[in-house]
Amino acid sequence: MALIVQKFGGTSVGSIERIEQVADKVKKFRESGDDLVVVLSAMSGETNRLIDLAKQISDKPEPRELDVIVSTGEQVTIALLAMALMKRGVEAVSYTGNQVRILTDSAHNKARILQIDDQKIRADLKAGRVVVVAGFQGVDEQGNITTLGRGGSDTTGVALAAALKADECQIYTDVDGVYTTDPRVVPQAQRLEKITFEEMLEMASLGSKVLQIRSVEFAGKYNVPLRVLHSFKEGPGTLITIDEEESMEQPIISGIAFNRDEAKLTIRGVPDTPGVAFKILGPISASNIEVDMIVQNVSHDNTTDFTFTVHRNEYEKALSVLENTAREIGAREVIGDTKIAKVSIVGVGMRSHAGVASRMFEALAKESINIQMISTSEIKVSVVIEEKYLELAVRALHTAFELDAPARQSE
Amino acid sequence: MALIVQKFGGTSVGSIERIEQVADKVKKFRESGDDLVVVLSAMSGETNRLIDLAKQISDKPEPRELDVIVSTGEQVTIALLAMALMKRGVEAVSYTGNQVRILTDSAHNKARILQIDDQKIRADLKAGRVVVVAGFQGVDEQGNITTLGRGGSDTTGVALAAALKADECQIYTDVDGVYTTDPRVVPQAQRLEKITFEEMLEMASLGSKVLQIRSVEFAGKYNVPLRVLHSFKEGPGTLITIDEEESMEQPIISGIAFNRDEAKLTIRGVPDTPGVAFKILGPISASNIEVDMIVQNVSHDNTTDFTFTVHRNEYEKALSVLENTAREIGAREVIGDTKIAKVSIVGVGMRSHAGVASRMFEALAKESINIQMISTSEIKVSVVIEEKYLELAVRALHTAFELDAPARQSE
Repeated sequence: MALIVQKFGGTSVGSIERIEQVADKVKKFRESGDDLVVVLSAMSGETNRLIDLAKQISDKPEPRELDVIVSTGEQVTIALLAMALMKRGVEAVSYTGNQVRILTDSAHNKARILQIDDQKIRADLKAGRVVVVAGFQGVDEQGNITTLGRGGSDTTGVALAAALKADECQIYTDVDGVYTTDPRVVPQAQRLEKITFEEMLEMASLGSKVLQIRSVEFAGKYNVPLRVLHSFKEGPGTLITIDEEESMEQPIISGIAFNRDEAKLTIRGVPDTPGVAFKILGPISASNIEVDMIVQNVSHDNTTDFTFTVHRNEYEKALSVLENTAREIGAREVIGDTKIAKVSIVGVGMRSHAGVASRMFEALAKESINIQMISTSEIKVSVVIEEKYLELAVRALHTAFELDAPARQSE
Repeated sequence: MALIVQKFGGTSVGSIERIEQVADKVKKFRESGDDLVVVLSAMSGETNRLIDLAKQISDKPEPRELDVIVSTGEQVTIALLAMALMKRGVEAVSYTGNQVRILTDSAHNKARILQIDDQKIRADLKAGRVVVVAGFQGVDEQGNITTLGRGGSDTTGVALAAALKADECQIYTDVDGVYTTDPRVVPQAQRLEKITFEEMLEMASLGSKVLQIRSVEFAGKYNVPLRVLHSFKEGPGTLITIDEEESMEQPIISGIAFNRDEAKLTIRGVPDTPGVAFKILGPISASNIEVDMIVQNVSHDNTTDFTFTVHRNEYEKALSVLENTAREIGAREVIGDTKIAKVSIVGVGMRSHAGVASRMFEALAKESINIQMISTSEIKVSVVIEEKYLELAVRALHTAFELDAPARQSE
């Protein structure tokens, strides 16, 4: 008999009909004999409705009071699901973050979980009940209601699974697993049976929005096996776990991630003196602009070129900061480009395989796609290319790294 | 510097605009130097919306889970008001029933307050904060969320005032006080400056729906001065308090109450044997029908007539029960009448004044209004009359007991 934590997001509980469907699903699991803790988000749209109410009072709602309001969203869904389960003859009980006692720090609207009291939940599980817990919320030492910030329900699920030493934390979503790449771009994309926490982190941070990054970090840290599944379709989903077996069959690359959210800024003809990188990036970070990739070319004539990417929404702001800097440090010019895309290959397999990067570059060269920037980490190679080549690049790489699903026989 | 508990109902916080208006009002009070605890209901309509959600899952929602859902209504309004106060530079903090710790029994959906922890509130008041508390809700010994039942926010206000030994509990409503009778029936009706708890109880139970009966009982028991005021109009309202001074000026009658919610049932020719009243009313009460007035006429020929009133909604049910009983005990016949009204004069003054009832009967006789039933208590005389005479009777009594406002000079 396993102990499973199941988390259903906002769209999975977005209507009474959906909640009834989730109840059917939970009932089936319960009948198979597993102990179940179910974590829920608010009904989709509800959190926004509540924030809007608060914003009608104040542009900058007081964070403690905003948490009091926003936390009501999950409080409603947990009780509705508990009712729906009891209607089906499944013993169930709902708990808010405060009732479980999910203790957090006092950073309202973005609190972090410090500790979870498992006593009540264990007693209920022992008594044969399904325990339904409000995601996204907790309580601080003083008894103030806190919320974990957007997507925090995933984190609640993982934290509960860690505290209860659950056998698995299942995250139900609107996709049936993690894919080698976006199937809308590459129809041959395949669902991964398994992926490591590290790979998932790279995939998530690169725009594959299946899971909240924080929850994956958390799961990795406490070694909680995490499974991504579709809320309303049957299937094994994708298991995210530690890299146990370094088997021969392991693919070199697990997936291709990409995004079009970034813009590129280059400052050219920078006098190459010590501390120049700080002089350039200091003012950017002081303006609260987050920088992603950073590339500095080798020095030439005692001047160097310096390129970095920022979110497209912050391009204009970054450009004006950088132009100021250029004047101050006597750089030749600043050029920018918003029509770029980032494509990355991700896989723990590349640790033990040489030549992965060059195979990537070869595949892109074959399609005459020019690479503008390159950045590498232990399990990832990212390149920046012209945006219009994005789909072509992703398809070429998907094929080059043998990720395409076998072609179906024509009927 | 006084300590005041102010309670605002659902219509007073029914929209963002209304909440802003309440914040203006609270700010003004605060600036006058009083310490304030504000108790709020949910936005009007919200509690029904939440109950509807639950009923979509189950016709008979599980009571514990229903409380989890319904209690979110006040949780939203308290935080919105706290925000609105802070926006105005008034220090404020919101608390749910659980956060204050309003301890109740475990009777979900109709819990009773057992104890209130005043520590947090006292500390906040001392620190100069306005404390905003969710009405209608509490928490039981096990940490389950409970609600007090409809209108329970008045009770929360009074209970908090009692626990904090507040100088006054102000209930803000959509009327500017308690009137001698309904001004829609008698334009000369006057707002009462003062009324006793006992009188208010009689007025409330007789259809004057300004205050929740339970909260008046509670206020009387703990001697909490209660004041009914209009949410958005200035004015002193009506103070409900104990009967301190038996002054000469005290009016004999404080007000005229009435209702049209009842129906009358008579069983005639009942063999007059001991225990006959129980034989008749036992089956009625076993059918969960509440009986109001009961009158048994003097015996005649060893048979008696027995008449009582029930709520009109239960008339058909009561009639069929009574017809069964009539057959069993060999009564002559059962007759019923739904076209009746009850009119009552209420006043502690009648304790020390003889002839109040006969003055009432005289006033009705003058208008040729036939009295069908009479029932008296220490501070009240009620009569049942034909419904069509209701307005006439109320006006005649209002004049006879000198309650009419002095006629205004014509302009």
